Amino acid sequence: MPSPLQQLQLWLDELGQISDEPGRLTRTFLSPAMTRAVEQTASYMQSAGLTTRVDTVGNLIGHCASSAPKAKTLLLGSHLDTVRHAGKYDGPLGVLLPIAVMAELQRRGVELPFHVEVVGFSEEEGVRFASGYLGSRGFTGQLRRRDLELRDGANLTVRQVLEAHNGGVFRRPKAAHRRRDLLGYVEVHIEQGPVLEAKGLAVGVVSAIAGQSRFKLTWRGKAGHAGTTPMALRRDAFAGVAEFAVAVEALARGTRGLVATIGSVQVAPGASNVIPSEVLHTLDVRHADDHTRLLALQELERITKRLARARDLTCDWQATQNDGAVACSPELTKQLERSVRAVQGRSLTLVSGAGHDAVVMSRHTPVAMLFVRCRDGLSHHPDEFASPQDIGVALQVMLDFLQKLAVRD
Amino acid sequence: MPSPLQQLQLWLDELGQISDEPGRLTRTFLSPAMTRAVEQTASYMQSAGLTTRVDTVGNLIGHCASSAPKAKTLLLGSHLDTVRHAGKYDGPLGVLLPIAVMAELQRRGVELPFHVEVVGFSEEEGVRFASGYLGSRGFTGQLRRRDLELRDGANLTVRQVLEAHNGGVFRRPKAAHRRRDLLGYVEVHIEQGPVLEAKGLAVGVVSAIAGQSRFKLTWRGKAGHAGTTPMALRRDAFAGVAEFAVAVEALARGTRGLVATIGSVQVAPGASNVIPSEVLHTLDVRHADDHTRLLALQELERITKRLARARDLTCDWQATQNDGAVACSPELTKQLERSVRAVQGRSLTLVSGAGHDAVVMSRHTPVAMLFVRCRDGLSHHPDEFASPQDIGVALQVMLDFLQKLAVRD
Repeated sequence: MPSPLQQLQLWLDELGQISDEPGRLTRTFLSPAMTRAVEQTASYMQSAGLTTRVDTVGNLIGHCASSAPKAKTLLLGSHLDTVRHAGKYDGPLGVLLPIAVMAELQRRGVELPFHVEVVGFSEEEGVRFASGYLGSRGFTGQLRRRDLELRDGANLTVRQVLEAHNGGVFRRPKAAHRRRDLLGYVEVHIEQGPVLEAKGLAVGVVSAIAGQSRFKLTWRGKAGHAGTTPMALRRDAFAGVAEFAVAVEALARGTRGLVATIGSVQVAPGASNVIPSEVLHTLDVRHADDHTRLLALQELERITKRLARARDLTCDWQATQNDGAVACSPELTKQLERSVRAVQGRSLTLVSGAGHDAVVMSRHTPVAMLFVRCRDGLSHHPDEFASPQDIGVALQVMLDFLQKLAVRD
Repeated sequence: MPSPLQQLQLWLDELGQISDEPGRLTRTFLSPAMTRAVEQTASYMQSAGLTTRVDTVGNLIGHCASSAPKAKTLLLGSHLDTVRHAGKYDGPLGVLLPIAVMAELQRRGVELPFHVEVVGFSEEEGVRFASGYLGSRGFTGQLRRRDLELRDGANLTVRQVLEAHNGGVFRRPKAAHRRRDLLGYVEVHIEQGPVLEAKGLAVGVVSAIAGQSRFKLTWRGKAGHAGTTPMALRRDAFAGVAEFAVAVEALARGTRGLVATIGSVQVAPGASNVIPSEVLHTLDVRHADDHTRLLALQELERITKRLARARDLTCDWQATQNDGAVACSPELTKQLERSVRAVQGRSLTLVSGAGHDAVVMSRHTPVAMLFVRCRDGLSHHPDEFASPQDIGVALQVMLDFLQKLAVRD
């Protein structure tokens, strides 16, 4: 019989083969491959002693009932959908690992004083409808009327797709659980960043999910001949952006936990012998603390005003995204850190710079997250990789966590 | 009878109507419109008492013989071709203004102790064959064998076009004049830059035509998630380029007469939430003194090495152009400055950041250039404009220059 870790690796491999596209891994909301992935995962759940159901938005739920009176429910999970040309860990690890944990607890004869539900959310990545979290929104009664009107590449709406899934009728669901019946939600996920690798640790505990602001900035100056316009008479939009980019980096480096990125830059007219008249670029700023992020944004806006004045440029800001930070539950996180210390020797808390189902779940119940080291911090790529050793550590941590929570509870 | 200035303005307007494209001004090497422009300009020359001929590369030459024994020849001119969708001053002003000057000298009965040839070069802008100076190269015996093999958009070679022009046979011409028979070449041209406008002067004298180096630089770092990669672990190629661009500007501002421009920038992968892994950008560096330019390039290369090392990036330089500076003739330039002071009150010498026929002519005979202020420094655009007042100043300067040169000669 395979060990829990061997079993988990087999499941990861099997699920990683179920795709909508030949030769690469892609599974999107309620696609044929997602339906097969849900069926496959349900069979794993059943083998672990869970009873399974699929809800009206396509989430797979594996239930393990406790015999304790007035038992509350602990939710464990992540998403089963993927980006296009994905790796096999982002999402599925957080569904399959809890199933392996439940199987092992059952083997050991451990009885928990709370119900456990392992949830495989039907949608998190936002690939099919360019809007994420449809699964966790549905599970917690947060699906919005406007979500149903989103359209996919074939011009089908979310509502049409959900009506087909439900045999013709769809109503926006209420939350699967009342808040007071829940202990919380714990999500295991690859880090998608390089911190654990740099620190030499297999796993870490997430203290918060960063808030993020995204902008498009447009700088306008004046084009001119690169040979005939003296430096003192230039209004070079790119020179202004360069000075701004240096200031952005300096501010982020000087502010603990702040990350700021200029990822897309377009320079016009874009000829080697013409001074740039216009630059359009993005700005992405994130921090676990909303106040710190907003202060940084104020400072960056002051800098653009100063630079624009000094260089006789204009600079327009256009906000494209603005999400507040999510703090993880102090109690669940402390408990998780204890288990990490027990298994790994020491714990590390880190901020998640990326969004997760836990963002939506946090509006309904306390959340905690365990991050697993991934090679080169890489994700959303077929080379995405978490080592069996590290996954084994995460497995032990979650086993320890559930048992300690049982004692505490 | 119109004044010389009124006559010149009429000629500029008439020639500005002769185009290969309806509704906008475009004349390229040996095109139908160029042939008409040459015929039209020849008629202006003849009305000014010049005898005209067209040479084997399409240059129009208007000759005014001196009766002085052993007279040398002074060349005056510029090009009759244009960029696409051009203004009417860049080129033709330097052909038509000397014709107006010669007409006025004839009217005044002034006899010069040297021959004058007004040359309308057939090609300078490099539009049709993506290589400029074909006219002045031909006129001075500098046409290279490889120039003849260049192909236009219709896949015709320069040789084929020149054979058609010459009725079937074409041989690369020798220089029209021996060096020792020439006094020099003087070109009147709009500034194509903002210096004269900023100084409030109608005309200025060119001391040198800047040397120029152009490069493509490629910086490579590592892509990463904009949310999950801490600042300290980033290898952001665009952050490196931004710091470099600030250094480029600082060096140019701190080096008298140096201009440096980053005009084209491409950032990959170019997503708002991904740290840039690769940036490709141009670098254009010009100075009137080659040594200063080369020192600046060495310093910039040192800076890229330092930045690449500090940021764990790579930076590759690829040279795309490297032209030495051209110094104008001290004697002719001094003479021209005297005339500018006489007409305008004060003179200003400035460096030409753009190339001109004078670059090629300088390899054969001493050169001097008179720049005329143009509105907003704009050229290569239908809004290109030099005021009649400023053109009138240039006309008076050239009249004065020829008469003073006659006395000196």
